[in-house]
Amino acid sequence: MKIARVSGTVVSTISAPIFDNRRLLFCDYITPDGEATGDYVIAVDVVDAGPGEIVLIMDEGNGARQIVGEATAPIRALVVGIIDPVDP
Amino acid sequence: MKIARVSGTVVSTISAPIFDNRRLLFCDYITPDGEATGDYVIAVDVVDAGPGEIVLIMDEGNGARQIVGEATAPIRALVVGIIDPVDP
Amino acid sequence: MKIARVSGTVVSTISAPIFDNRRLLFCDYITPDGEATGDYVIAVDVVDAGPGEIVLIMDEGNGARQIVGEATAPIRALVVGIIDPVDP
Amino acid sequence: MKIARVSGTVVSTISAPIFDNRRLLFCDYITPDGEATGDYVIAVDVVDAGPGEIVLIMDEGNGARQIVGEATAPIRALVVGIIDPVDP
Amino acid sequence: MKIARVSGTVVSTISAPIFDNRRLLFCDYITPDGEATGDYVIAVDVVDAGPGEIVLIMDEGNGARQIVGEATAPIRALVVGIIDPVDP
Repeated sequence: MKIARVSGTVVSTISAPIFDNRRLLFCDYITPDGEATGDYVIAVDVVDAGPGEIVLIMDEGNGARQIVGEATAPIRALVVGIIDPVDP
Repeated sequence: MKIARVSGTVVSTISAPIFDNRRLLFCDYITPDGEATGDYVIAVDVVDAGPGEIVLIMDEGNGARQIVGEATAPIRALVVGIIDPVDP
Repeated sequence: MKIARVSGTVVSTISAPIFDNRRLLFCDYITPDGEATGDYVIAVDVVDAGPGEIVLIMDEGNGARQIVGEATAPIRALVVGIIDPVDP
Repeated sequence: MKIARVSGTVVSTISAPIFDNRRLLFCDYITPDGEATGDYVIAVDVVDAGPGEIVLIMDEGNGARQIVGEATAPIRALVVGIIDPVDP
Repeated sequence: MKIARVSGTVVSTISAPIFDNRRLLFCDYITPDGEATGDYVIAVDVVDAGPGEIVLIMDEGNGARQIVGEATAPIRALVVGIIDPVDP
């Protein structure tokens, strides 16, 4: 997993029920010190994170499917937690 | 997932039925601001996207197989949605 | 998937039947415009590609296993097609 | 697998039992010579590693799930060993 | 797969039987021309490779598990062959 800062919401329609009631978030990956790495990911939000918040990203399909509780959901990247002030 | 801009079509023959009626698209990955990252992917089109359109790319085999509804399809990268103007 | 240019053959012995009658090819990844990206992959050839030819590379284990028709073959990267002149 | 140096602990809450009694560690990837690569990973600790220690990171979901003994745990990166002085 | 040059042995203890009688090798990835790419991997040795030898690395969990013949072994990167002088 890595940490990222939420920067916005993706507006699109995907033909899979898993996405119906969940937002897709633009998440800019950051270092443990909070600097942007230049890479980003679009992740499914399951913790109701908002813009500017620092979140924990899980980027593995099988793990993501376990967390949402749907063994066949077509997802890979997931916002799995909001980060409290880190202790690096 | 990431977003990308469709740049063209790949003309090739692959010996797997999943590819028979589907186009393979060259997709240039872009940042949330719309700038090219320099990386690209060839993805199977399931939403009838055209050149210049900005699309959502899922790059995970198991998720891609769920969306096309064939548990054993030999695919990994999929164009899963067309992006409306983003709200970064 | 990505496209690549075949640059040579790997001579090695691997203790798995899937490799017995198949060649391993050095494939230099290229951009849609045909420029080398600097990255390469060693892929199993299933389409009888030769040096200099531009090929389509699938780099996902489960998809590769479906194409060769052996559910447990220890392979990941596969040359799945020869590319006709691209239309970028 | 790669080696990394533990740099701190992530404080977050994730809704999956596998994380209840385990710490999440910031791990800076290093080369065999001990230099930072600039990349990092957040990994689940199963060997009680502490800050400054050099550890072995497994970054594959199925392997990680086998080591913790839970076939459906939503994890991918795991600290699987503490490294004794290396012999490069 | 990619090729790499063995540079040393990792000394660590991992709590999984698959590692009991097998060495973990530091392997520096190289190009087809033999130049170091700057990246490396720690791989399980199944062909008795030694320092300086050029080897073939498979870096996919399911394929690696097939080669060692243990469907649940927590491994991902494997030294699967020693490379004879290449023919690029």
